[in-house]
Amino acid sequence: MLSDVAEQTQTMLYDSEQIVRRSNSPFNNDPVKALIDNDPAEIAKLSGTDYFTMLAATHAGSTSAEISKAAADWLAVTRHPRFNRLYTELVYQPMLEVLAYFRANGYKTIIVSGGTPGFMRSFAERAYGIPPEQVIGTTFAGTYSFDNDIALVKSDPRVMLIDDGPGKAVGIDHYIGRVPVASFGNSDGDIAMLATATNSPASRGRKRLAAIVWHTDAAREYAYDRDTSIGRLNQGLELAPRLGWTLIDMKRDWKVVFPFEK
Amino acid sequence: MLSDVAEQTQTMLYDSEQIVRRSNSPFNNDPVKALIDNDPAEIAKLSGTDYFTMLAATHAGSTSAEISKAAADWLAVTRHPRFNRLYTELVYQPMLEVLAYFRANGYKTIIVSGGTPGFMRSFAERAYGIPPEQVIGTTFAGTYSFDNDIALVKSDPRVMLIDDGPGKAVGIDHYIGRVPVASFGNSDGDIAMLATATNSPASRGRKRLAAIVWHTDAAREYAYDRDTSIGRLNQGLELAPRLGWTLIDMKRDWKVVFPFEK
Repeated sequence: MLSDVAEQTQTMLYDSEQIVRRSNSPFNNDPVKALIDNDPAEIAKLSGTDYFTMLAATHAGSTSAEISKAAADWLAVTRHPRFNRLYTELVYQPMLEVLAYFRANGYKTIIVSGGTPGFMRSFAERAYGIPPEQVIGTTFAGTYSFDNDIALVKSDPRVMLIDDGPGKAVGIDHYIGRVPVASFGNSDGDIAMLATATNSPASRGRKRLAAIVWHTDAAREYAYDRDTSIGRLNQGLELAPRLGWTLIDMKRDWKVVFPFEK
Repeated sequence: MLSDVAEQTQTMLYDSEQIVRRSNSPFNNDPVKALIDNDPAEIAKLSGTDYFTMLAATHAGSTSAEISKAAADWLAVTRHPRFNRLYTELVYQPMLEVLAYFRANGYKTIIVSGGTPGFMRSFAERAYGIPPEQVIGTTFAGTYSFDNDIALVKSDPRVMLIDDGPGKAVGIDHYIGRVPVASFGNSDGDIAMLATATNSPASRGRKRLAAIVWHTDAAREYAYDRDTSIGRLNQGLELAPRLGWTLIDMKRDWKVVFPFEK
């Protein structure tokens, strides 16, 4: 339901750092070795499946708490190279307002992210007011153990759900079990999620909102759509008018992008 | 978090009916053919994996809405053979009270069931006051489609998560992302869930409650523990005193079992 510039790059930068840090990473050879240079452009060349398989391998053996702790530590000190702000500051003011508006009217707000829940949960409650159980993400299989009276679930190197593209519709089906009243995205990876809100059998005859944040503001944020490899928005621009989705032109429609501008 | 007599038998009876109804079931030979006689005792002989694999196959091609609709239709008319009550009436009055008590104090209540979310969600909101997004269950992979402008997720014949035994701990990790404050079970299949509440690293130094409903009342409900194949409670009886879990002796501790007794 959220979109933010942080999501475009932060998880990738973070993830590639994790690869470097883990000596037991199985990826010490091409083509993934290039990633160890921490270059989002190189990461963007990977297929989604390769990317998430790699992610599963680097998370394997860790608990969700450990993953969240590592992410929180990283987020506490790492600044976005262009904005020189913590990534958790790079949330969109209009999205914070729409989340607050829905919550004030009795709706639950849920994040459906391509990133891992462990990462998103490390800051979602503080930054967005969204508790851990309302974060859906790309999920790896888990193994439960009970040794020395300690109950643990450790991540397995097997991808269970890629919560991106069609996987977002599957995630909504599994985790929410009903059709969202409103859904917000910013790339073609969100199309299935948006269509679930507006074009499910349960949506018929009911008012539903789907909106795409269109990155049109190179000065305050970024301007890209069809010609980017990360966060491409192409099919979504064609579907939006046909399916009645709102296109939010960031440059034209948003008085404020980031909270710190106010 | 819930336990009820309905759960012991209703999903199995329902599931075996579904097998009969679906002509495309791949299970027309031994040993699963025996199930078509709708005999819980035969179903109980299957391994958990076989049972859930069969379930995945019989659900394949259906949407969650279709599964919930079929379950709701079945539950609307089918009576428990012994109690001659609808299965949705066979909830435990003390569990309804404990759910209401937690909710009144600001807690979320969540069902972590071995059954499918499609089945549980068809009645959980009405019977327990638990909305669809707070139901975790055994989950099959899904396939998203968008044809004729209709967004659908259909079940695949592949088991994604067996939400029973250790899988309950994995389900809690994936869906909730934090450690429950209290957890209620009634069989060894709940041990991992109970241990997650009391013996996770995040539980240390905090008050946590785990309780097992012990079926000791043959007159009002059932009496069984170690010697049953469905819902066996054996290891749990040994772990409870050691780990400080409360054993709820149904016969001794519950003034009322079912709401209709009042």
